[in-house]
Amino acid sequence: MMSSQCVQSLKNLLICLDKAEQYAGAKEFDTSVLLTSRLAPDMQPLTYQVQSACDYVKAAAAWLSGQTPPRHEDNERTVDELRARIRKTAAFAESVAAAQYAQASGREVRLSWAPGKVIGGKDYLLQMTIPDTYFHIAMAYAILRHNGVDVRKQDFLGPINLVNG
Amino acid sequence: MMSSQCVQSLKNLLICLDKAEQYAGAKEFDTSVLLTSRLAPDMQPLTYQVQSACDYVKAAAAWLSGQTPPRHEDNERTVDELRARIRKTAAFAESVAAAQYAQASGREVRLSWAPGKVIGGKDYLLQMTIPDTYFHIAMAYAILRHNGVDVRKQDFLGPINLVNG
Repeated sequence: MMSSQCVQSLKNLLICLDKAEQYAGAKEFDTSVLLTSRLAPDMQPLTYQVQSACDYVKAAAAWLSGQTPPRHEDNERTVDELRARIRKTAAFAESVAAAQYAQASGREVRLSWAPGKVIGGKDYLLQMTIPDTYFHIAMAYAILRHNGVDVRKQDFLGPINLVNG
Repeated sequence: MMSSQCVQSLKNLLICLDKAEQYAGAKEFDTSVLLTSRLAPDMQPLTYQVQSACDYVKAAAAWLSGQTPPRHEDNERTVDELRARIRKTAAFAESVAAAQYAQASGREVRLSWAPGKVIGGKDYLLQMTIPDTYFHIAMAYAILRHNGVDVRKQDFLGPINLVNG
């Protein structure tokens, strides 16, 4: 199921955060410099990109299984706190059993920024959840990469299920 | 079907390229400066990011429908040539009818970088095609954004099917 791949991709950010912390340690600067870095002055910093990726995964797991998303405050200030945010998001998404998505494609999802409108469950997953989640994970990656952290596309992709053939 | 959303996301890059061209025009610099820009010295430039996003979409449309991907040379040097690359990729992907994907999840895909190995069609779509496609589209976006082009997340997302509700 697609949402489980989004959860995996979110967890892949943990590797990127490890590398960010190691890089800051090796270069002897405060990791918060990376957490507050942006690709452009009117673009959101790394911390926000991680929070936002988490929220798209959390929201999809909730709305598509007929639940209200748990509230996660955006108050992370350290790499450890961002790790915890990723882990609690993944734990919530993984708490939803496949059977709970049985009605997912027929559900209507309301969006706070579009009053009076809804989006069908399938469109929500394909047009919002997946692109939005990958967008924010990729921006987190790009901010680190631009700042010299040795993250690799393999870190972004995570495990790939190759078999002998 | 997911691959049609990847095709749509690829087409959304056309808007980003329009904005890149307008920006270069307004600031009176050669658009090729943007096409050769990178987020890090050991990372690929914009042109490659577009080519690569195209190739993941093309490959998935082909392999998952039992075809060999058409060969597209990586010889684009202008924005117009990149637009043409996106359009021929989209045209190929859209030439594949839904019925041709009937056996997609059971297919085994060979990867040039993993001799002797295969990946199942479903894993290929979820673990490679979708994340790889969004990765390269997002890196193209990030390069433009970092260079001051006024691309917006809405441009990345493209049309969202909101309905009254």
